[in-house]
Amino acid sequence: MVEAKHITSKDNPRIKEMKKLQSKKYRRKLDQFLIEGEHLIEEAIAHGQKIHTLVFLEGYDHGKYDDLGLETFVVNDSVMKTLSSLETPPGIMAVVSYVAPETEGRRVLLLDGIQDPGNLGTLLRTADAFGFGRVILSRDTVDAFSDKVLRSAQGSTFHIDITAMDATEAVQHFDGTVLATDLEGAIPLDEVQGEDPLMIILGNEGRGVSDAVLAQVDRKIKIDMPGASESLNVAIAGGIIMHHFKA
Amino acid sequence: MVEAKHITSKDNPRIKEMKKLQSKKYRRKLDQFLIEGEHLIEEAIAHGQKIHTLVFLEGYDHGKYDDLGLETFVVNDSVMKTLSSLETPPGIMAVVSYVAPETEGRRVLLLDGIQDPGNLGTLLRTADAFGFGRVILSRDTVDAFSDKVLRSAQGSTFHIDITAMDATEAVQHFDGTVLATDLEGAIPLDEVQGEDPLMIILGNEGRGVSDAVLAQVDRKIKIDMPGASESLNVAIAGGIIMHHFKA
Repeated sequence: MVEAKHITSKDNPRIKEMKKLQSKKYRRKLDQFLIEGEHLIEEAIAHGQKIHTLVFLEGYDHGKYDDLGLETFVVNDSVMKTLSSLETPPGIMAVVSYVAPETEGRRVLLLDGIQDPGNLGTLLRTADAFGFGRVILSRDTVDAFSDKVLRSAQGSTFHIDITAMDATEAVQHFDGTVLATDLEGAIPLDEVQGEDPLMIILGNEGRGVSDAVLAQVDRKIKIDMPGASESLNVAIAGGIIMHHFKA
Repeated sequence: MVEAKHITSKDNPRIKEMKKLQSKKYRRKLDQFLIEGEHLIEEAIAHGQKIHTLVFLEGYDHGKYDDLGLETFVVNDSVMKTLSSLETPPGIMAVVSYVAPETEGRRVLLLDGIQDPGNLGTLLRTADAFGFGRVILSRDTVDAFSDKVLRSAQGSTFHIDITAMDATEAVQHFDGTVLATDLEGAIPLDEVQGEDPLMIILGNEGRGVSDAVLAQVDRKIKIDMPGASESLNVAIAGGIIMHHFKA
């Protein structure tokens, strides 16, 4: 049983320290990030994430978390607002370090330069849905632990193994079939059969998969579009492809 | 050839009138909306939309638009910022009325209560890609002509017939097969063959398709997910389903 500490000032040093985790720089430096709301916190606990600190809004019934033996703060609305990225702050937040789950790594999604946090979060959620247990982010892909990405991933962050590394190295070290989306010289998805181990590569919203990565893949694939749209959103393309190759 | 009028004050009555189009209320009232950036404006012109006014940032080369005979304003950065929804305003904006293109209406997407503008925009873009030429929005779906929806639709708004109407009425009046996503009593997508005329119904991000609408459909469908994710983002689900039934 832990005694919760009551904090009512935004200038409290621990609160100021936590607030720094809103920036990618400090998330990297401390290897920690903030999560908001009961659903994400329940998922983090259920999936073995390292929880450092719990923060509750005054009046929030935190009884069920007291047995976890974690550092616990109860804060007022003003402090919660300073920590939260939401206009209406949640009743519960946490400081967490990511612990990658064990995965066979036979089905891998490689994201090469994804810039939109909503796209990244949705792709993580979709990879989780279709059994792509490992997701590799190129160095220029957005941070997976920002509030926006965490929110759109809806807890899938904690179900899959997410690694940031050089994209070309990731391809070189992968022992299996590597497929990437491209518009030129690509085979329609419907004609491609995939067998594990399988790596799917999706690229940046504007420029697609980078040339250096494309040079290393086994096959380029595309999604046929009978309509007038010039292209698909990258998360939609990823959804269709991962569904096609789902376990 | 039209003489462009130079405006340097945010308080100019025409600018104030245009700025009102940032709210849904005025978009409805005037049956007009704002579009930003060269790509959307080119698409609007190419696809027969009614352009009322063009607004250019000082220094923007608007020569190719001068022959269109439209009301034209050249404004300074401060005025452009007040009209634009973007932090970095574009060089060109326009006031437009939507003109639905002709469509056979044999492949229809019905959106029942979509709340996220990004989801709606992406679904419009995806419907366009897979030949769903008509999209019906239930009354409680977000407005298709807000800046966020227009931006994520990337011009597809002008390729497809978008109508807002009562969802149950839309189903009643549709003469063809009606499929809706649901979790209970649903058939896996892979087992369903679809023939035109075909209506696909997707529901609200939280509650799914409403009961009143579900009561009227021919078949409920679901997407099998082998992984740990509880659900798919609605735009991803829509992408997979429309791809499955693509023309």
